[in-house]
Amino acid sequence: MKFACTQLSLIKAISTVDKAVSTRTTIPALKGILLNVKDNRLFLTASDLDLSIETAIEIQAESEGSVVVNAKLFGDIIRKLPSAIVKLEEINGKLFISCLGSEFNIVTLPADEFPNIGMVNELHKINLNKDIFKDLIKKTSFAASIDEKKGSLTGCLMQFSDNCLELAALDGFRMAIAKAALPGENKKVLIPARILTELAKLLNDIDASDISLILDEKRAEVFMDETRVVIRLLEGEFIRYKDIIPKEYKTRVIVSAKEMLNSIERASLLAKEGKNNLIRLEITDGNIEISSRSEEGNVKENISAETEGDNLVIGFNSKYISDVLKVVSDDEIAFEMGNAVSACLIKPVSGDEYTYLVLPVRISAN
Amino acid sequence: MKFACTQLSLIKAISTVDKAVSTRTTIPALKGILLNVKDNRLFLTASDLDLSIETAIEIQAESEGSVVVNAKLFGDIIRKLPSAIVKLEEINGKLFISCLGSEFNIVTLPADEFPNIGMVNELHKINLNKDIFKDLIKKTSFAASIDEKKGSLTGCLMQFSDNCLELAALDGFRMAIAKAALPGENKKVLIPARILTELAKLLNDIDASDISLILDEKRAEVFMDETRVVIRLLEGEFIRYKDIIPKEYKTRVIVSAKEMLNSIERASLLAKEGKNNLIRLEITDGNIEISSRSEEGNVKENISAETEGDNLVIGFNSKYISDVLKVVSDDEIAFEMGNAVSACLIKPVSGDEYTYLVLPVRISAN
Repeated sequence: MKFACTQLSLIKAISTVDKAVSTRTTIPALKGILLNVKDNRLFLTASDLDLSIETAIEIQAESEGSVVVNAKLFGDIIRKLPSAIVKLEEINGKLFISCLGSEFNIVTLPADEFPNIGMVNELHKINLNKDIFKDLIKKTSFAASIDEKKGSLTGCLMQFSDNCLELAALDGFRMAIAKAALPGENKKVLIPARILTELAKLLNDIDASDISLILDEKRAEVFMDETRVVIRLLEGEFIRYKDIIPKEYKTRVIVSAKEMLNSIERASLLAKEGKNNLIRLEITDGNIEISSRSEEGNVKENISAETEGDNLVIGFNSKYISDVLKVVSDDEIAFEMGNAVSACLIKPVSGDEYTYLVLPVRISAN
Repeated sequence: MKFACTQLSLIKAISTVDKAVSTRTTIPALKGILLNVKDNRLFLTASDLDLSIETAIEIQAESEGSVVVNAKLFGDIIRKLPSAIVKLEEINGKLFISCLGSEFNIVTLPADEFPNIGMVNELHKINLNKDIFKDLIKKTSFAASIDEKKGSLTGCLMQFSDNCLELAALDGFRMAIAKAALPGENKKVLIPARILTELAKLLNDIDASDISLILDEKRAEVFMDETRVVIRLLEGEFIRYKDIIPKEYKTRVIVSAKEMLNSIERASLLAKEGKNNLIRLEITDGNIEISSRSEEGNVKENISAETEGDNLVIGFNSKYISDVLKVVSDDEIAFEMGNAVSACLIKPVSGDEYTYLVLPVRISAN
């Protein structure tokens, strides 16, 4: 393997695949990037087994071959080199890197220690608008569980049906559902939420307005310009989340999302994490009072709101409400509640573009 | 104590005094800010005993008084309030803070638990140009020891003599000396380097081009606009550092500071911290080869240089050289060396505006 390319193109390719490099693994090859020279192109691949990213750049190749290098060391070296032509060559199991006055020799691993990403069989193909897909990911993926032991709850369900794409994620305390019109065949896949978040970052870097999602039984594949992303789907059934959405409410509040977020963030200053970040909402005619207290003091926030139905006192983990208010873009937003121990829905003032459900925290009487 | 002021002026004052708030202390008052309303002004004071900062802002005072509040909580609250008029009042040992729809009640400590900063007796007064002083601090303070047990080595010696101000700091492995013309009486003070660094940050925020340093036997005081900074001087004798500067050299190299820094940073990628970040310099006619190696690989960097005297192979902790190259502003810089085990000087190509001394690391023969 012997080739030359610009430092800039190599940096860009490393940054693309870096997102799939394993940080916690006992398999040395998974901390690496596979470099593969073929047909005058360099293919770079990284994989943590759940997510694999492969990208390619134009190079001046003298001979083909492949090798695995440590991603961190290789990235650090290339980023620190001057912006010039970089020459790379595999010599006796080491990678020789030279650029102007700099010469590096770094240890490598054989290419066959790297997992084979393979191709995904095109059983299904779904075309997606990039911006819509990114927006749906932003609106839902934060609500998935981050506890690896929670299985399917670490995933985000992508459901294509009735010419609509709906994403849903939940962690047992809160749920996020967002949807957008999207013509196509009916299909359901469960994708790790963590990986959807990485995918959204990759989508930021591409010019194309549409992407294709290729699916087989176990994997999803996305092509973006020169980059191919392969995702291992989560197995298992996703919870029948529609069944847990309350159909009725006794109290409805319409409020400025921004004012509500600011007030909740201030109230959180005295809501301690050890106590579930507990804030208390008292809804009366035309007003929401948000309060919290700790041994350091107490706070009361009053926001004017359009209220309907019963007065209500209800407690929440402030984080679950502010997470929602941070991702919605509407100026005004509706809260629908039954009583102090039933789930609260957060929705657009009209329409059903998104639905959030947050379980309340029981609060003492006073 | 009862007053009102703008949120913006309060934020600015908190940010100024914040730099003196103790982070590690068992004395609760030192984690706080003293608020003192007097003569229609609010005085804010923070102190970690070594460094005390007091600033004042214009307010609408209704009644005078003073109280200590937790600096972190108070700062977080004020920063999160809307940009409007904030009303503050001490009621039964709590501080009541209100701003539009927000009402906070936070616990306070009595003002008499806060250390008395007092005034510094004006035994000496030295006028300093702000930019020159900041530059001298930047060029030297990084070389002081950060080990609190090292006593006077954690300080930076400020020496006024022969119409010149010279700052010097050293940690046993390297030394930094920088000087500038400054007419005035002869005087020596030893100031904790950590505090000089904080002082330099405060100097960034002021408009005045000159500052006055007031000195008594134990303390230094600086006035900047509405802000007063009191610094506890270090006691003990500073090492006679001029005696350890070699008078002669056998090898002299003039090199681009930027090229040298870039090469050293690349070479450091394979110089492990556990091994003193060891880099090897081989100086031959017109060239410096910088190299390092670890189990991950090796690197060689070649830079053209103007060389004089003997060829030399010498080892360094790369951090001690790069720290110097990061603070000097000259394009070219001179290295003067005796042999592989004697101190290396880093100086301007001509003049003696700064002198750095770095001890070499013994390297094996091959």
